[in-house]
Amino acid sequence: MNAQQPYPMPVQAVLDELRPLLGDRLSTSLAEREQHGHGESYHRSQLPDAVCYVQSTEEVSCIVKTCAKYGVPIVPFGGGTSLEGHVCAVHGGICIDLSRMQRILAIRPGDLDVTVEAGVTRQQLNTELRTSGLFFPIDPGGESTLGGMAATRASGTNAVRYGTMRENVLSLTVVLADGSVIKTANRARKSSAGYDLTRLFVGSEGTLGIITEVTLRLYGIPETISAAVCTFPDVASAVNSVVSIIQYGIPVARVELLDARTVMAVNRYSKMTLDEQPTLFFEFHGSPAGVAEQIEQTQAIVEENAAVGFVAAADADARNALWKARHSVHYAMQSMRPNGRIWSTDVCVPISQLTPCIIETEKDLAQASFFIAMVGHVGDGNFHLGLVVDPDSKAELAEAEALNNRLVRRAIALDGTATGEHGVGSGKIKFMELEHGAGAVNTMRLIKQALDPQNLLNPGKILPGDKASEVGLSLLAGEALD
Amino acid sequence: MNAQQPYPMPVQAVLDELRPLLGDRLSTSLAEREQHGHGESYHRSQLPDAVCYVQSTEEVSCIVKTCAKYGVPIVPFGGGTSLEGHVCAVHGGICIDLSRMQRILAIRPGDLDVTVEAGVTRQQLNTELRTSGLFFPIDPGGESTLGGMAATRASGTNAVRYGTMRENVLSLTVVLADGSVIKTANRARKSSAGYDLTRLFVGSEGTLGIITEVTLRLYGIPETISAAVCTFPDVASAVNSVVSIIQYGIPVARVELLDARTVMAVNRYSKMTLDEQPTLFFEFHGSPAGVAEQIEQTQAIVEENAAVGFVAAADADARNALWKARHSVHYAMQSMRPNGRIWSTDVCVPISQLTPCIIETEKDLAQASFFIAMVGHVGDGNFHLGLVVDPDSKAELAEAEALNNRLVRRAIALDGTATGEHGVGSGKIKFMELEHGAGAVNTMRLIKQALDPQNLLNPGKILPGDKASEVGLSLLAGEALD
Repeated sequence: MNAQQPYPMPVQAVLDELRPLLGDRLSTSLAEREQHGHGESYHRSQLPDAVCYVQSTEEVSCIVKTCAKYGVPIVPFGGGTSLEGHVCAVHGGICIDLSRMQRILAIRPGDLDVTVEAGVTRQQLNTELRTSGLFFPIDPGGESTLGGMAATRASGTNAVRYGTMRENVLSLTVVLADGSVIKTANRARKSSAGYDLTRLFVGSEGTLGIITEVTLRLYGIPETISAAVCTFPDVASAVNSVVSIIQYGIPVARVELLDARTVMAVNRYSKMTLDEQPTLFFEFHGSPAGVAEQIEQTQAIVEENAAVGFVAAADADARNALWKARHSVHYAMQSMRPNGRIWSTDVCVPISQLTPCIIETEKDLAQASFFIAMVGHVGDGNFHLGLVVDPDSKAELAEAEALNNRLVRRAIALDGTATGEHGVGSGKIKFMELEHGAGAVNTMRLIKQALDPQNLLNPGKILPGDKASEVGLSLLAGEALD
Repeated sequence: MNAQQPYPMPVQAVLDELRPLLGDRLSTSLAEREQHGHGESYHRSQLPDAVCYVQSTEEVSCIVKTCAKYGVPIVPFGGGTSLEGHVCAVHGGICIDLSRMQRILAIRPGDLDVTVEAGVTRQQLNTELRTSGLFFPIDPGGESTLGGMAATRASGTNAVRYGTMRENVLSLTVVLADGSVIKTANRARKSSAGYDLTRLFVGSEGTLGIITEVTLRLYGIPETISAAVCTFPDVASAVNSVVSIIQYGIPVARVELLDARTVMAVNRYSKMTLDEQPTLFFEFHGSPAGVAEQIEQTQAIVEENAAVGFVAAADADARNALWKARHSVHYAMQSMRPNGRIWSTDVCVPISQLTPCIIETEKDLAQASFFIAMVGHVGDGNFHLGLVVDPDSKAELAEAEALNNRLVRRAIALDGTATGEHGVGSGKIKFMELEHGAGAVNTMRLIKQALDPQNLLNPGKILPGDKASEVGLSLLAGEALD
């Protein structure tokens, strides 16, 4: 415990009650609190008063009951990879670190599903599955936990074919605000038995309950996997190709856009020699005949859109090199400015609106005073800009915020969303009413109040109206929504 | 208005306020009230006090505001095809008939989506789409409206490939309990922007709000469609085939089980000459090569499971005859006993549990005193028994209820659900705690109370604890859950 900083009475009372349960798995050291006060983004760190490393649903329940008794906030923490300040303890309180809940509870090949504890990462799960012929496709960047991925409704490069966490979570075990434990559903693939609690907790970012176990759909590893790459004279041609591919119904497993700046960064970082042009990476899954057909149809479409150098790579080494380069984009961007921080945008629009959205956005990029790279899960209408900013420059942060504000407003005006897969956290709160309307946001608030009447579960996230989280953001960037 | 039955003050006040708005679209005639007091099932009719035929979201909003002011219940009504008493006015009140809201508001081929008013039927939508190369796959029996299908989280024969209403609704316009109107989401294919209001209202059966517009995903009509049929020596062999097909990952578009009794009824009713054995109907969608591959793999699996007479039918006439026969099963069962009513069960289990569930259930069928046919969307683990009962026989109704109770308990014990696609209504309320646990049901109740504090939106549905709906059921069947 940090002697310089005495705790307010209720926190001290919680610590006193929890210490016999948790022993040295309850920490108040500054180092551990600092490590748990932020994700992987530009958001200002906000420290919890203590960190609890839990090992079971029962422990989470016990901690929540204790916090509820004393009115102390609770912030759940998984892999710490969030990008919108989800884990910042804007009101202090107890951080529940679930990353040690790493048991795989049941793999059921016959039902193509699995039940894991919340702290299992997707990498751990896929390693465990490697001899089963099955895999779990959702792949956000980083070592995310499956509990955290459920909580933020994450997706990744495979969503165009396999969906997001929304489509792939069958059931959750959740600790509610009073410490009671529920299971949101049985394992039937479909059910009409009442309100869809599973989908309500998926994407609720720890504000309605704490996810401790996750049951997920699995998929057979495809008989054939092939990758392909091609370049375009401009981003619009690349995006138009993808729009045609989706509209044509080709079941691509992945289709990722990298703009010329991103390819340049990737070449430098991963020592590759890709043409530094707007580029699409593809992956195709299916039977040998099915994959051959998909490749042929895709090649015809991209070449109609002025693609050059379409090359398909069936062998695993070439494929893996390509996707390793794609997954290293974050670090490649980072390497362009070693002291920079990456502010990642996350809009998603209906596919027909993707070309106008990106063309308009490119005008902004041309005028930016810092390096910006674009990557996109364009098959979903989702793309990211990586704004590589100096975190100590108020001017750059203000420029980044203004650019992001324009981008989000543009996406929402095109019937899209402020966040395709990163979540709201505190960073996107200010767009909630713009996107959903006051009535829908109020409906969310009524649900929050009903399930967490003391507002102790990850307070200051998702819903507007919490001054602490909004001040937290404006302290950083110094500009209101323009 | 029915002069013999004076309305309690609040209803009269609502009628007085609404008549200037609705004119002759507000009816209190006994005939129209009777027509709106029941779905297509065994449930006892319970009449609303009046029926309003609405033409717009604004009219629904106005009616709900008026009912909220006077505390009068509201029951939304679409096609009247529900099977669990969803439209029974267990506390009287105002029935809002949305079936005249039949405008298709926007078809967007580029985004593969469509926005319709709630009263559009799937048949109307697919007729409208026929020149676009697109279709909407979800196909429950009957002339259901898309609003009603969203409200009950319906599915049908295509769910194994295309999902249910849960996966295919992108956004809803909903009138809330205070008469305000929200849109649940924009049209981006994925979003992490807050609580998933779309999925919360899908399956909420009019108890949280009234769905007035629906935005749905569409699909390209497959280049090739082929059907197939084969028979088995017993139901277990047929089901084991389907389990293998799903586990193998063959992307069948439809796979339907008919037991020998069902085939017999279909032969009589549709003048067909199918072998009266347990039978699977298949449909395959894809490219020519893809479909040929699926058929070859499927044939190999079914023949390993003792199937005989596997015949694939690529031409549209043969396919349509097969699926017309499948869709006539309800009427074929009905024709076995012209004065009977069909009590349709609806359990769904994880696919690995389907064979044990069906084998155990067949023992019950052998002992039943009335005709029972089995049909199943077995690719989802979902099957229906059609119990053809005499609605005037208390003994038969009691026998049917006891059989259904055993079946539902069996499915839930196998990690399944009481209802795969029909919904809870009043008929499945008694299983809600058994399936979900008291804590999860209480979570649903907190949401209901938060969004409908006066309990005016379709009261007596989904949630246990409403005496009127439970009495309504027990009056019919005279037996509590055994």
